[in-house]
Amino acid sequence: MPGFPEELQRLIGELGRLPGVGQKSAERLAFFLLKGEAADAYKLADAIRAARDALRPCRDCFNVSAGERCAVCADPARDRGAVMVVEHPRDLMAFEAMGRWKGVYHVLLGRLAPHEGQGPEHTSAAALEARVRKGGVREVVLATNPDAEGDAAALYLERRLAGAPGVTVTRLARGLGTGGSIEYAGTEVLAEALALRRPSSGKGPAHGAPEGA
Amino acid sequence: MPGFPEELQRLIGELGRLPGVGQKSAERLAFFLLKGEAADAYKLADAIRAARDALRPCRDCFNVSAGERCAVCADPARDRGAVMVVEHPRDLMAFEAMGRWKGVYHVLLGRLAPHEGQGPEHTSAAALEARVRKGGVREVVLATNPDAEGDAAALYLERRLAGAPGVTVTRLARGLGTGGSIEYAGTEVLAEALALRRPSSGKGPAHGAPEGA
Repeated sequence: MPGFPEELQRLIGELGRLPGVGQKSAERLAFFLLKGEAADAYKLADAIRAARDALRPCRDCFNVSAGERCAVCADPARDRGAVMVVEHPRDLMAFEAMGRWKGVYHVLLGRLAPHEGQGPEHTSAAALEARVRKGGVREVVLATNPDAEGDAAALYLERRLAGAPGVTVTRLARGLGTGGSIEYAGTEVLAEALALRRPSSGKGPAHGAPEGA
Repeated sequence: MPGFPEELQRLIGELGRLPGVGQKSAERLAFFLLKGEAADAYKLADAIRAARDALRPCRDCFNVSAGERCAVCADPARDRGAVMVVEHPRDLMAFEAMGRWKGVYHVLLGRLAPHEGQGPEHTSAAALEARVRKGGVREVVLATNPDAEGDAAALYLERRLAGAPGVTVTRLARGLGTGGSIEYAGTEVLAEALALRRPSSGKGPAHGAPEGA
């Protein structure tokens, strides 16, 4: 029985490695790419190559960046003494869309879930610790997702940053719905959660928001 | 507010043009491609280019092909007097997986749905008629999907092929569930539908299957 030509099988195989794309979806995507204009398929291929070639993690915060430093870290107006720790560049973009965070970020580049074998070595946690211990940071806002994994990651980072002199570690107020996701939260929910953030070891909301927001 | 770097926005835009991929899915796919090995992302980009460069419609049947003629048409053992008309190469592959069709195919390369403005000029229907009228074809099996569109397409093709001398036009028996899809049907269902195919104008199953299967 003759099957699909090798080039088509290869394309289906590569598309099937994408997250959420099964065998049938991969076949449909492959035929879509074959059916349209060749120029459109080339554009996608070129965009993949160009993104891989041009983009890298920011030297300072690990955000996705076209240069050594990302657009946030390269901005001289940002307050380098206040560092918000997020899991993913998409979370960073959600806070940038809110527009009220004047500090910088640190992107973990992955979920910290020690109980699932996703250890800190898969993230930029060590770089965060080095960055904080180097000095100049007044506050670290732990803005991990408000779910079990995010809480475990925040607890882990809080312990890791404990004892850094002159550094307050805070967490976003739990105005975020537990079990939700930062990137889908609305601007107002994010703004409230940021305004009400509290000391990491606190028993309730801090009296007045810490500086930096 | 700094947004995603241009290369990332471009990649998200191109991924978002794929069918079934919305903005958030496109972002997730883009970050997946950025996060893994560069070699894996390059492989996908290269597979897209290679498929577009290598593949074309078969000269005879319009099946997807790495050469002038597809693997089925290039096989001297296939019976060129029996032509099965399918909408899509995936349907062809479903029959090839069944393994009992010894004839060849004609791939319409699209749905024939005149009432939805999807006219025959968007398909290879004219090439099918020319192929049949050129002679040498004893039977045309209309294997369009067993739904309203497929029925309309079969009726259209039956009329178009009417009067071709020495040609019997048949349709797959309605052992296929109405409203279903050929590519998801099991091998046994396909085999039964092929064995019980009947003359296109018939009132019921033919007495004995026509030759060719």
